[in-house]
Amino acid sequence: MEKICIFTTGGTIDKVYFDQMSRYEVGEPQVEVILKEANVTVDYEIRPLLRKDSLDLTDADRALIRRAVEECASSRIVITHGTDTMKETAEKLRGIPGKVIVLTGAIEPARIKSSDAPFNVGAAVAAVQTLPPGVYIAMNGRIFDPRKVRKNREANRFEELETEGVGSRRP
Amino acid sequence: MEKICIFTTGGTIDKVYFDQMSRYEVGEPQVEVILKEANVTVDYEIRPLLRKDSLDLTDADRALIRRAVEECASSRIVITHGTDTMKETAEKLRGIPGKVIVLTGAIEPARIKSSDAPFNVGAAVAAVQTLPPGVYIAMNGRIFDPRKVRKNREANRFEELETEGVGSRRP
Amino acid sequence: MEKICIFTTGGTIDKVYFDQMSRYEVGEPQVEVILKEANVTVDYEIRPLLRKDSLDLTDADRALIRRAVEECASSRIVITHGTDTMKETAEKLRGIPGKVIVLTGAIEPARIKSSDAPFNVGAAVAAVQTLPPGVYIAMNGRIFDPRKVRKNREANRFEELETEGVGSRRP
Amino acid sequence: MEKICIFTTGGTIDKVYFDQMSRYEVGEPQVEVILKEANVTVDYEIRPLLRKDSLDLTDADRALIRRAVEECASSRIVITHGTDTMKETAEKLRGIPGKVIVLTGAIEPARIKSSDAPFNVGAAVAAVQTLPPGVYIAMNGRIFDPRKVRKNREANRFEELETEGVGSRRP
Repeated sequence: MEKICIFTTGGTIDKVYFDQMSRYEVGEPQVEVILKEANVTVDYEIRPLLRKDSLDLTDADRALIRRAVEECASSRIVITHGTDTMKETAEKLRGIPGKVIVLTGAIEPARIKSSDAPFNVGAAVAAVQTLPPGVYIAMNGRIFDPRKVRKNREANRFEELETEGVGSRRP
Repeated sequence: MEKICIFTTGGTIDKVYFDQMSRYEVGEPQVEVILKEANVTVDYEIRPLLRKDSLDLTDADRALIRRAVEECASSRIVITHGTDTMKETAEKLRGIPGKVIVLTGAIEPARIKSSDAPFNVGAAVAAVQTLPPGVYIAMNGRIFDPRKVRKNREANRFEELETEGVGSRRP
Repeated sequence: MEKICIFTTGGTIDKVYFDQMSRYEVGEPQVEVILKEANVTVDYEIRPLLRKDSLDLTDADRALIRRAVEECASSRIVITHGTDTMKETAEKLRGIPGKVIVLTGAIEPARIKSSDAPFNVGAAVAAVQTLPPGVYIAMNGRIFDPRKVRKNREANRFEELETEGVGSRRP
Repeated sequence: MEKICIFTTGGTIDKVYFDQMSRYEVGEPQVEVILKEANVTVDYEIRPLLRKDSLDLTDADRALIRRAVEECASSRIVITHGTDTMKETAEKLRGIPGKVIVLTGAIEPARIKSSDAPFNVGAAVAAVQTLPPGVYIAMNGRIFDPRKVRKNREANRFEELETEGVGSRRP
């Protein structure tokens, strides 16, 4: 099995609480902790790219992410990312031939007891090994086509725009 | 996306610590807690079948599991299971046509802070939606063919008997 | 042992992360969860009074807290409170005869894995049973006299203004 | 405030789950992790003495603990200990003049998400600073006189033999 390349860009998954200012800020990438706790034996490499709330990502940031994915020797890519603009970044990653790219993140910071982060990273790591080349979003226990998903902010979850998820189109 | 049917059979993932006797016993299925914390929106149904350490599973137990899988209306099946004989149960589930069956579990009980359980369940839920019909084991961030895996008890992890995991045989 | 009356006023200990707005807000009192997890068998009663960041507490809020303490039938009072103005509220509670009043809170929300909340509540519950009447702050493993403490915001901890903590003045 | 000396002897608080053997064993002392997470600023020193289930403690072990307490320069002592024979060890520590000795432990291992360990250690650290010389057990949110307590194994908690806890005998 080829190495999985994991890029981190920030987002809620990596948020830390600072009491002094009573606010959350993006901290160290948590995906490393998650992969260690899960005793993951797939060969992987973590490359921190950005440390931003995804609402603050610029076109230049997305160009940087795309370049990193293109230049990466591996064909299997996981990206941890804020949920608010995960779809936008995913769309900017379309058209890179031969690569399986799975974006994931969390609704609750990984440091919170009941966080969805370990589950989501588990889903992304499985998906990147089983899906054909393309760009996907792994959230809420589903594998979404970025063109057919939206974040429902009121319900705080990802939903399909149309009737079927990617995973269901199996041969 | 078709409903995912989740069978629970016990194993370390569901273990509880009892101080009185200073021992662990298999408790309530934890997969429900994990799926709720992950805000999973795929349609799923949890059916508790057994509550045993996998070393205690009998031929009758495995026949029961197989029958439950065969009779289940869904073609996507996740089974939580103890790790010690996960391979054996997986082999007994071979040859059921048209079903994707993914077994998973945990090295550390889900109630432990650093448990691998949420990651593993996330991997299994993603794998069951993306893989073709067959029987698989999702552990250590990998998707294994049960015929080609063993549990390395010293290192406390699953390892391939041969060179390649299932996931790598992508088209 | 007389019942312990526990008043909750909000603060970091009860904060929840809301992804939609990428911010923390004061949620349900967590002291109840903490006392249940600790299997506390002392008779206690939890009375939610306020749900505020302590920087937002007004004179009217502090008058409300004082009245609640005065009117409470129990002589043993624990108050969960934000850390930024815990000292100020403690000073407003001086001079209530015959009552042991211990304020505590947390630097990290109780919902975070590595939170100091359970330890601090444990310290407050012990202190309220062992100290003579007066007002105290239980933070950082110490029992402080509110007149002789300050919150060091840079180091994010409570420190004595003078040389000795309250606890050291034992007979 | 004088330094607190913390002796560790094993017990449930330090238990680790070993999947290979499907059992719990006493691991590294967890009190250090707990004190760090609680940002404790009292001066303290941790001295690991034993690593045993308390049912396995011998007379020689208890003599070792007593000698360590007697020889320790500090007058404030916390001991982490298994719950099954905490009372017996406490009784062997009677009659050491001028020292406040507080024993504590946990019903659930500190590594479990809902463990009572951080709360109990918080209670012990507060109690050792506020109580007069003597031997005490801090469990279930109470401060017990070891002569007047028993572990109720069915209910899995400490209970008074008589009507009143130590803490209630305040002047």
